[in-house]
Amino acid sequence: MRLPEAWIISVGNELLNGRIVNTNLSWLARKLTIDGYLVKAAITVRDDCNDIVWAFRTALNRGADLVISTGGLGPTFDDKTSECLSKALGRRHVVNEKALRMVEEKYRERNLPMTEHRVKMAMMPEGAEPIKNEVGTAPGILVREGEALIIVLPGVPKEMKDIFERIEPLIRERAPPLHYVSKDLVVRGVPESAAAPLIERVMKEFPVYIKSHPHGHEIRKPVLKINITASSPEEGEAERIVKAALEKLKDLLIEEGGEVEGIEDAEQGEADSSRP
Amino acid sequence: MRLPEAWIISVGNELLNGRIVNTNLSWLARKLTIDGYLVKAAITVRDDCNDIVWAFRTALNRGADLVISTGGLGPTFDDKTSECLSKALGRRHVVNEKALRMVEEKYRERNLPMTEHRVKMAMMPEGAEPIKNEVGTAPGILVREGEALIIVLPGVPKEMKDIFERIEPLIRERAPPLHYVSKDLVVRGVPESAAAPLIERVMKEFPVYIKSHPHGHEIRKPVLKINITASSPEEGEAERIVKAALEKLKDLLIEEGGEVEGIEDAEQGEADSSRP
Repeated sequence: MRLPEAWIISVGNELLNGRIVNTNLSWLARKLTIDGYLVKAAITVRDDCNDIVWAFRTALNRGADLVISTGGLGPTFDDKTSECLSKALGRRHVVNEKALRMVEEKYRERNLPMTEHRVKMAMMPEGAEPIKNEVGTAPGILVREGEALIIVLPGVPKEMKDIFERIEPLIRERAPPLHYVSKDLVVRGVPESAAAPLIERVMKEFPVYIKSHPHGHEIRKPVLKINITASSPEEGEAERIVKAALEKLKDLLIEEGGEVEGIEDAEQGEADSSRP
Repeated sequence: MRLPEAWIISVGNELLNGRIVNTNLSWLARKLTIDGYLVKAAITVRDDCNDIVWAFRTALNRGADLVISTGGLGPTFDDKTSECLSKALGRRHVVNEKALRMVEEKYRERNLPMTEHRVKMAMMPEGAEPIKNEVGTAPGILVREGEALIIVLPGVPKEMKDIFERIEPLIRERAPPLHYVSKDLVVRGVPESAAAPLIERVMKEFPVYIKSHPHGHEIRKPVLKINITASSPEEGEAERIVKAALEKLKDLLIEEGGEVEGIEDAEQGEADSSRP
């Protein structure tokens, strides 16, 4: 089975002078792998339009089915990804009306006027679709170019993840049908900060994606809902992987003094379980 | 002043399925920036010879003065970087006699015979020079191609850093003359694990490279020698940056209960101070 190929482009001087470790890349790579893609290559470039244009064209010319970029999306002069993507595609760079309404709404809530820099965040390649950003301000960008899908995300991890998960069902739809399993675990008595290294350990050992959602109070009365997902072309395999990862995580959480409340299939409609 | 341009190539499936965060990239990017390079781009590819060949050729064709790769150097079948570099350069892939002696010595120490897989670690593009690996087994590879320098390093961070620092004087030599400042600080009473987040904080705030060398006992009687380096084309600037970073770090270490013993210029001949 040929998997669709994804390329990841990371934009930002801070990644190439070593001030920042690119955790966006590993997060996206794992997500896309579980969503059924072969992540073929990743390119990191500076905030330089020639380099950004080159990166997008390279990914498309080398047959990417999906290109995802992070960074360089925002109001400041060095946020150039959208404009340079327009250039790379040979499209006009225009104000997207739907994006403009999204940005205006953000500022209206805070009684702030639109300025040139704020309008800038609504400028996109002609024909693009904005993707809602609930965490920050600049909308994500979705562009279809031939058979390929291009998705432009901000560099701030929280915003990047929020927008990615909003568009993830569409991404999964374009991958071959996979058996996708998503299970939840509730644990009491372990603060999220103590669960974090245990989750990392399990993610190292098993090809799963794990996300913890804190409820209750981090220190006084911590309750965590932990979601584990995996996928596989073979029936039963994803189920087996998730179960093994759950058992391991359960043991680690109990060792840490946690009270595990039981395991259940994740609810439908959640970001991580939109494919049954 | 035009800075020489460096490209960093990272090889490994584990980087593109999200199992590993690429800390080698940020470490090298910071080192090279301080050594006087503009890190122009980074490419991450899978353990696939076509992709590895493409990555090296791309960096060279786009004018890299220095190409550094990490990963895919070792005895197993999926360690392909050296062989694929030979292909990319159109050179024969041969046993390097100097490298063979380095590898043989490692195994002789442990009374182990040479096998095909061990000889593999001594195979390099024709005309390459091996770089000693004190931490692991596979030597690094240095190749001159036209005006460009290519350096192939293992993916294991400890080995990667050891070999890089061995070759760093040559790397610095090829950058424009920079004022390079290196100072040491000795602190008692702070375990290295407690100093680590403080060092990270200072590295976020200042364009410096900081390395801690533990002496004494981590818990019972910790003594740390901390080396801070920075560089700048302008006289006085590197000195100013290192001093500011040192002051900040000193304050943080004292807050942590440390006893700071004084600041001195780093000794000549250390890896981090080979340029006066």
